[in-house]
Amino acid sequence: MTSRAETLVALARARGVLVASAESCTGGMVSAAITDIPGSSKMFDRGFVTYSNAAKQALLGVRAETLDAHGAVSEPVAAEMAEGALARSEADLAVAITGIAGPGGSEHKPEGRVCFALARKGAGVVTETVEFGALGRDRVRAASRDNALDLLIGALNG
Amino acid sequence: MTSRAETLVALARARGVLVASAESCTGGMVSAAITDIPGSSKMFDRGFVTYSNAAKQALLGVRAETLDAHGAVSEPVAAEMAEGALARSEADLAVAITGIAGPGGSEHKPEGRVCFALARKGAGVVTETVEFGALGRDRVRAASRDNALDLLIGALNG
Repeated sequence: MTSRAETLVALARARGVLVASAESCTGGMVSAAITDIPGSSKMFDRGFVTYSNAAKQALLGVRAETLDAHGAVSEPVAAEMAEGALARSEADLAVAITGIAGPGGSEHKPEGRVCFALARKGAGVVTETVEFGALGRDRVRAASRDNALDLLIGALNG
Repeated sequence: MTSRAETLVALARARGVLVASAESCTGGMVSAAITDIPGSSKMFDRGFVTYSNAAKQALLGVRAETLDAHGAVSEPVAAEMAEGALARSEADLAVAITGIAGPGGSEHKPEGRVCFALARKGAGVVTETVEFGALGRDRVRAASRDNALDLLIGALNG
């Protein structure tokens, strides 16, 4: 069976598209899954694991006002993360993930809420929020990783 | 059983030490393992997944001359990655990993060679090379992740 990451690596290589990632709650699981595939060095440029708000601001240029107004787990912050990853890399396509893996909610937001953004050079950014619910930290993070890979695959197929 | 990552998160929190990572061949596996542990947000600042040489230079300040003279898989490059991660984060302690996961060798270096560096604020940088051999990509990467976690634990215990 071909894994999501294998599909993504093959598609990106076929299309000549370089990919970057910007991860908060998944903490590097997306880049780890991609780089697990031999040949990924041809399509994966770099990944930003911005766990703290300071890291989101310094590495990706997320604005303090956006963090203050919407909180770290929000579509506006996800969008700025993906746009920042695109601007600060050589990639053509970037995915961003920020969410509440749990245990417990935070920022008055429920456990299992994860926001995603996909930015493509010259094509703007799209965002979505998925409520995975209180599945537990491991399952929320794995589901978030898989959704991020699916978003990248969808962008390459679209 | 307490995992390496659990041990690391507990130790770093007890010592009040902030940690950062700079990963090439492990591609985010170290940061993913750390952030798998609840409470890791208190001790993990950020991670750099610098898969390409361009990313090592742009995100971590690795010098072109060092890459040219020693190749990406070398202790001097690992050292500059760890020092760069420390300089470009709020962390007190940073680990770097660069190696050849395979399949196959490269840069005239054998499959399974992985270089590590550990940089601590005000305490310089230490490097080491481990020859894991041709165990296969998955096992080399997992062993590299575990060795990086052990280096961080050792630094906190030392």
